[in-house]
Amino acid sequence: MDMNTKRTPLKDLGEFGLIEHLTKDAEIINKSTQKAVGDDAAVMNYGTKCVVASTDILLEGIHFDLTYTPLKHLGYKAAVVNFSDIYAMNAKPAQLLVSIGISARFCVEDIEQIYDGIKLACQTYKVDLVGGDTSSSLTGLTLSLTILGEADKEKICYRSGAKPNDLICLTGNIGAAYMGLQLLEREKKVFEGNTNIQPQFDGYDYVLQRFLKPEARKDIVELMADADIVPTSMIDISDGLSSEILHICKQSNVGARIYLSYIPIASQTFKIAEEMGIDAVTAALNGGEDYELLFTLPLALRDKIKDLGGIDVIGHITEPQEGAYLVTPEGTEIKLQAQGWQHV
Amino acid sequence: MDMNTKRTPLKDLGEFGLIEHLTKDAEIINKSTQKAVGDDAAVMNYGTKCVVASTDILLEGIHFDLTYTPLKHLGYKAAVVNFSDIYAMNAKPAQLLVSIGISARFCVEDIEQIYDGIKLACQTYKVDLVGGDTSSSLTGLTLSLTILGEADKEKICYRSGAKPNDLICLTGNIGAAYMGLQLLEREKKVFEGNTNIQPQFDGYDYVLQRFLKPEARKDIVELMADADIVPTSMIDISDGLSSEILHICKQSNVGARIYLSYIPIASQTFKIAEEMGIDAVTAALNGGEDYELLFTLPLALRDKIKDLGGIDVIGHITEPQEGAYLVTPEGTEIKLQAQGWQHV
Repeated sequence: MDMNTKRTPLKDLGEFGLIEHLTKDAEIINKSTQKAVGDDAAVMNYGTKCVVASTDILLEGIHFDLTYTPLKHLGYKAAVVNFSDIYAMNAKPAQLLVSIGISARFCVEDIEQIYDGIKLACQTYKVDLVGGDTSSSLTGLTLSLTILGEADKEKICYRSGAKPNDLICLTGNIGAAYMGLQLLEREKKVFEGNTNIQPQFDGYDYVLQRFLKPEARKDIVELMADADIVPTSMIDISDGLSSEILHICKQSNVGARIYLSYIPIASQTFKIAEEMGIDAVTAALNGGEDYELLFTLPLALRDKIKDLGGIDVIGHITEPQEGAYLVTPEGTEIKLQAQGWQHV
Repeated sequence: MDMNTKRTPLKDLGEFGLIEHLTKDAEIINKSTQKAVGDDAAVMNYGTKCVVASTDILLEGIHFDLTYTPLKHLGYKAAVVNFSDIYAMNAKPAQLLVSIGISARFCVEDIEQIYDGIKLACQTYKVDLVGGDTSSSLTGLTLSLTILGEADKEKICYRSGAKPNDLICLTGNIGAAYMGLQLLEREKKVFEGNTNIQPQFDGYDYVLQRFLKPEARKDIVELMADADIVPTSMIDISDGLSSEILHICKQSNVGARIYLSYIPIASQTFKIAEEMGIDAVTAALNGGEDYELLFTLPLALRDKIKDLGGIDVIGHITEPQEGAYLVTPEGTEIKLQAQGWQHV
């Protein structure tokens, strides 16, 4: 490592700041490159068909804790999370590449379990496992997944297409995965303190499943395709609703109003949040790892989208100068801030 | 981690064995998937154009040693090595995704240097940096690169197309990168033993450059395209000539004869091998990291390929029952064995 005179700590930039900083002067040369850095996936254009590509790196101790994550679940989740980025482009995941770095404490049977999870996800989402790389590592487990997907050129949804007056729509409910994680972390602490106490997970199955075995919204993307609905913009919720709506606002150059009372939160999420003294709305706004889809639609499609089911209209897009705010039932406007999960 | 009754150590399978074991029952569902696991890259078919994809994971302490690897060189090499897999398919690299896991001992300026190397490689090889992921890590530096490339469907070269009587061709020379690595390891030991001694690298520039800043054979792939030459099979030399020719033999179901006296070895490689008491031929056969191209061609193209320059005919393909052998100048046949570099 060269010793530079100036040494800027990574946390000064944060994850998104670092990516932007490192890639800002990257020139585009190939005419097949339609969209480079800055969306859920890169887009390559081959005539009428587009190929979309996205990659995730998962490091032990940062993205997952093997104390409470079964290896098969880890493989399943790693794949599904990767697929979710492709659905967020309104595309269909098709080919997966998996790289894995393995320390000496793992055996063949452990890696088989991870791959069993990956292969189950591939079957469920009709994705082909087409390649990868394996290596030993000095410490811990590293997974790096790259997913390729397909879409017709005119169906691709970027983060940049939202227009003032568009509806802001959200699939499923949010905040549950975050509460699942809090629960696992709490039980881990109890367990570490006194091994006679068994973790208590009764009645918490929904939030645990949302954290340990999330699903990507293949169903919604297919329903919208059948109904000939193409969102004006779309993103998946990996870092929390606040962070994601701000991505859409920034890249579409618009503002937004989200209505607190319309944010869908499951009853189990509310119950556990109360029990643990956590504000459920904060979990929904900033928790992340929900892998639901957040998208915008022209106002005229309000009835059509409600008929699909499983989708809530939670707000609307505004002119950029109006900013991005959460509106409480009392009409108070709270500025949305990205407090989402940051790895760097 | 689940505790299985059976725990098979990873080394029992080796890298290739593990990949084969984990992916053997992976079903192909999508019609765009032309070739999955088992070549230098996966191949997706979108009409007449094919997209090829390959991924590499690089872990600190396993694939690189920052004691003697400048960060910019690390970035450059990581990218070039990834591009080499695409050239080995007779395709053109076009889009690169880079994921990076960074521990707290690195600062923004360090990561900038890695990206400077990656971006220089992208400029040199006309590749677009289109995406990636960054994350903190608990220990060390991890890089994961995925490259997408393009080719006409009928130009793609697999490992499986070699036919008996085909010529075996090799670009450039081999064994130099291995000697470069030995030299760096030797100087590292000297340095660790006595800090007053400066590393002695005078006259070793070629082998050091071959190890620290290798190039992919874009030139040869372009020359062959201009001359309308399409190899019957092709692979790049990452794990040593022996290992690579055995991949071609296995996947094409053929045998091979390689003539020892035709194997191209640079004079500096010979000189340093002698000095260090290493057999230069062993370095060439088993050293690896040369990133030269090994390919097969119909016998009728002998003159045409020799006219291109920079390519040696080092042997020929035989019927499968004749096996894969190295032929010494005295006519002795030595069975080729994959003793190449194995990460697992």
